[in-house]
Amino acid sequence: MNYRVTLAYDGTEYHGFQWQAGLVTIQSALGDALQKLAGEPVIIHAAGRTDAGVHAEGQVVSFRLNKQWDERRLRNALNGNLPHDIRALTAEVAPDDFHARFHAQAKIYRYQIYVNQVMNPLWMRYAWHFPYELDAERLRADAAALLGRHDFSAFTVSSSAVKSHVRTLTDFRLETEGALWRLWFSGNGFLRYQVRTMVGALVDVNRGRLPINSLSEILARRDRQLTGTAAPAHGLTLAKVEY
Amino acid sequence: MNYRVTLAYDGTEYHGFQWQAGLVTIQSALGDALQKLAGEPVIIHAAGRTDAGVHAEGQVVSFRLNKQWDERRLRNALNGNLPHDIRALTAEVAPDDFHARFHAQAKIYRYQIYVNQVMNPLWMRYAWHFPYELDAERLRADAAALLGRHDFSAFTVSSSAVKSHVRTLTDFRLETEGALWRLWFSGNGFLRYQVRTMVGALVDVNRGRLPINSLSEILARRDRQLTGTAAPAHGLTLAKVEY
Repeated sequence: MNYRVTLAYDGTEYHGFQWQAGLVTIQSALGDALQKLAGEPVIIHAAGRTDAGVHAEGQVVSFRLNKQWDERRLRNALNGNLPHDIRALTAEVAPDDFHARFHAQAKIYRYQIYVNQVMNPLWMRYAWHFPYELDAERLRADAAALLGRHDFSAFTVSSSAVKSHVRTLTDFRLETEGALWRLWFSGNGFLRYQVRTMVGALVDVNRGRLPINSLSEILARRDRQLTGTAAPAHGLTLAKVEY
Repeated sequence: MNYRVTLAYDGTEYHGFQWQAGLVTIQSALGDALQKLAGEPVIIHAAGRTDAGVHAEGQVVSFRLNKQWDERRLRNALNGNLPHDIRALTAEVAPDDFHARFHAQAKIYRYQIYVNQVMNPLWMRYAWHFPYELDAERLRADAAALLGRHDFSAFTVSSSAVKSHVRTLTDFRLETEGALWRLWFSGNGFLRYQVRTMVGALVDVNRGRLPINSLSEILARRDRQLTGTAAPAHGLTLAKVEY
């Protein structure tokens, strides 16, 4: 049977999603839990391979198990075998051809910035501390230039193995609640480090720190040298995957 | 000079506010930082002695320093010497007779409950996981019985050293945002474990688990045996102190 599981995790203690020899990753922890249930290694596909330190509230994985499981029982058995910072929110039987990565239609990422001179320690694990002022209206206007279908080469690693850097950013929203700023990015797919590089560029351009004053021009030039430093991993959460 | 400092801290790693021999507490960490600045031990008064594991976003402390400090410089020097999970939000010169504890007029506590079968790991440190359903309207109605001036003996430890258990709860609010429930308690003062015992009783009576079905009757009987288990420390935050 093919199963689809929605995961939430605190990525602080993990070396990212993907399996890596000798390192504790989300995939290795989930693989260990599934192996206990299945009695054999289980191949796991994930919608998004989140990087080290990145969190998730709606990661989706798929895998096959020989035994048939009741959905609720599978979820509870997984949670009984997973560490507390990884939780299976739902487990469902999936169509036989369902593949968490290939069938993902859209992803929503949330990036949190705590904009205040002094950090609030209760947000230390989940928001980037930015100790200078930012202009919310300017940030919204700058982000609008990123909406739509573009070649995002300036916003990913140059060594990226994927053939095309064209992606569609379908929605951007900035919500502020006091010092806590939440930036929501929706798209059909994201390149490696894309969200964090976009956040870094939005903040840098807001402070007048980039050589170029417009994100449209950075997009057009396709030059990673223009975008500055990516925002840190711990502010980022994979919020939702749509199929 | 007398100083007043507002503190925020993540209480997870601390044995409460108050100094205890051989244990790491908020007071010992703050005392260490102040001693570095002052070159001698500094006596610290706090508005509320939060228990082990309890957090703060608006704890207030007062202390005297022989040297005169610029407010901003004192705040930054404290943050340079404090661990990252304790932050001085503001530092101000205070009137000579200001005492953080004796002059506090009101306190606001926030208690967070995550009401869902499966816990969200991103709230694990700051919200109590309650895996059963709760009735928000009933909770608001039950809490209304606690408002006003009462003898809260049923809601504190029986060994409590204070003479009077009479306190005034001036406001209660429940805010829900999906599975995250925030309970706000305002009052002129709170007994030891009072907020956590009130939360535990509100949840227990909501589930029909208490021998008595009304919080007014529990208040009237003044019997700690009637209130069940206090809600866990990690859901509680001292949000604000008013003077």
